[in-house]
Amino acid sequence: MVRSRPIVGTGPATIATIAEEVGVSLTTVSKVLNGRSDVSPGTRARVEASLERHRYRRRGKRQSVGVEQIELVFHELDSVWATEIIGGVEGVTAAAEVGVVLSQLDGKHRPSQQWLESVLLRRPLGVLLVLCNLTDPQRQQLQRRSIPSVVIDTDSATSALVPTVGSNNWSGGLLATRHLLELGHRRIACISGPQDMLCSRARAAGFRFAHDEAGLPVDPDLVVYGNFSAHDGYEYAMELLPRPDRPTAIFAGSDMQAMGVLRAARQHGLDVPADLSVIGYDNLPVAAWIAPALTTVNQPLRDMAGTATQMLLDLARGVELSTSRIDLVTELIVRESTAPFEPRG
Amino acid sequence: MVRSRPIVGTGPATIATIAEEVGVSLTTVSKVLNGRSDVSPGTRARVEASLERHRYRRRGKRQSVGVEQIELVFHELDSVWATEIIGGVEGVTAAAEVGVVLSQLDGKHRPSQQWLESVLLRRPLGVLLVLCNLTDPQRQQLQRRSIPSVVIDTDSATSALVPTVGSNNWSGGLLATRHLLELGHRRIACISGPQDMLCSRARAAGFRFAHDEAGLPVDPDLVVYGNFSAHDGYEYAMELLPRPDRPTAIFAGSDMQAMGVLRAARQHGLDVPADLSVIGYDNLPVAAWIAPALTTVNQPLRDMAGTATQMLLDLARGVELSTSRIDLVTELIVRESTAPFEPRG
Repeated sequence: MVRSRPIVGTGPATIATIAEEVGVSLTTVSKVLNGRSDVSPGTRARVEASLERHRYRRRGKRQSVGVEQIELVFHELDSVWATEIIGGVEGVTAAAEVGVVLSQLDGKHRPSQQWLESVLLRRPLGVLLVLCNLTDPQRQQLQRRSIPSVVIDTDSATSALVPTVGSNNWSGGLLATRHLLELGHRRIACISGPQDMLCSRARAAGFRFAHDEAGLPVDPDLVVYGNFSAHDGYEYAMELLPRPDRPTAIFAGSDMQAMGVLRAARQHGLDVPADLSVIGYDNLPVAAWIAPALTTVNQPLRDMAGTATQMLLDLARGVELSTSRIDLVTELIVRESTAPFEPRG
Repeated sequence: MVRSRPIVGTGPATIATIAEEVGVSLTTVSKVLNGRSDVSPGTRARVEASLERHRYRRRGKRQSVGVEQIELVFHELDSVWATEIIGGVEGVTAAAEVGVVLSQLDGKHRPSQQWLESVLLRRPLGVLLVLCNLTDPQRQQLQRRSIPSVVIDTDSATSALVPTVGSNNWSGGLLATRHLLELGHRRIACISGPQDMLCSRARAAGFRFAHDEAGLPVDPDLVVYGNFSAHDGYEYAMELLPRPDRPTAIFAGSDMQAMGVLRAARQHGLDVPADLSVIGYDNLPVAAWIAPALTTVNQPLRDMAGTATQMLLDLARGVELSTSRIDLVTELIVRESTAPFEPRG
């Protein structure tokens, strides 16, 4: 049996190297690189494998005739969150005269291969992912075409290979909880986000750390994980508030969750903040307008998006990034929904 | 002097007709059609003029190799409104495997020529405009390239040339005001949107019509126009509520405005709805969660966006539209912020 030996030259691989190794035409390799559909799946797979083996990278300027765009991909689009992110991205792309192509993944955290193929056809400057990430093979497919990607996440503890802009969730949880402890609260509940998201666990860890700092125990029954929706905030608060040893303060995972908590408090005849202190997370524009105006952790969504977009454009232009893993600072905005704990009759 | 005579054949004009008339190469005409920048401004203008004279339309399929995208252009992006619209657009484009390129005009109602040129380069299937519109020359430039446009507006009384999806604002104003009159209110204020937007005037007209229907007068001092922001709702309510003959109900132009009105009411020690009834407009997701839950006019933003997107894709595919001017129905959602008028002390 004759083993086929990969052809490895001394210089970096060219399209010709790949074509020769796979035994196809230059055109076929080029079609695969450009995401064209008129290549059989078998041939496509062999070409991709060879590109990967040679760590092929497309060199030089993209062939576009002036159409510069980036891909902006959301895990889902159904919140005010998205508007803040889009505003931050648009601020940078408009100035750079770069178009933004929007997609959303219906709540999934990994794009489909079909999505990737449409991206390859569009040949963007780069891909910006919000609360979602590429699979390793997808990232490699983009890298072979010199298309960088950056992730906007609520934490930056993803793979070190992926440039990420996040915010410091642990610190957000710490600041919120310290505030409540300083107000004298001792039974504090933490309704965090989904447990499979690191940001949720990081905030809960900050919550626990603040207790440790103060030499106070955490009742594990008071730490729960839900979705970031008003509905989930409401449901968890409806479970927590009828307890005989009910919490006197609730640290919620989002402003929308906090709005659900406020409703549950009203239904239990509890005044916020006199009977119950509530802290949100995100600092959405509405947080300042509701009654009581919400004490919340400012997550600088717009700045995060702007920073990530600039990073992506720099990468696309071959600029060396001084750092590719950035956490923006979270801060506590104290409004009207928190007050000192005062034991009642 | 020999007058240059336009070459008008018997069939429709081709690129060759244009090239010959202007005295340039086929490539130059093609470059102008494709929005390429390497054509002098003078030549570009002469080619455009000739294209217009011949009512040139690009025929047949676009030359794209599978990249299908539409342009989604917002007047501005800074509200929850935008998320609803984007969600509605995405629902249709994702199913059709069409990309969405997002732009916003920083609050302007007409795109710049620079924006148009970048659109020509991207060669979209069509252009979807939200609360903004093309100039006539811009629309003609797109038409020559067989790129249709559709407007999503809060009213559909724009030029009959432009396919539009709106909602019935007059009817929204009527329904809200009828509800307040039926509750016994006789001093009702209307804080509408910007006076230069037809939707604002249409709602105020519905407000007046409901009074006429009931044989009741409108106090013109109680009809004001502001921006759709919480801030403007707050400012106008702060002027209206200290009046000795203060209104007992306020019909606001948006849910965000209504949130500003609620704050002003709190500052004046007025209970909503016991002392003051408040109606919003839009039915944003937050409207159901604030306290009191907001009675509001449902503007079916998501459906409007979905309908407009489908219309655009149909136009791009040469489907004859049965109707190109659609108003979706508005409806009143009664929650907790409205109550019968009960004269006090």
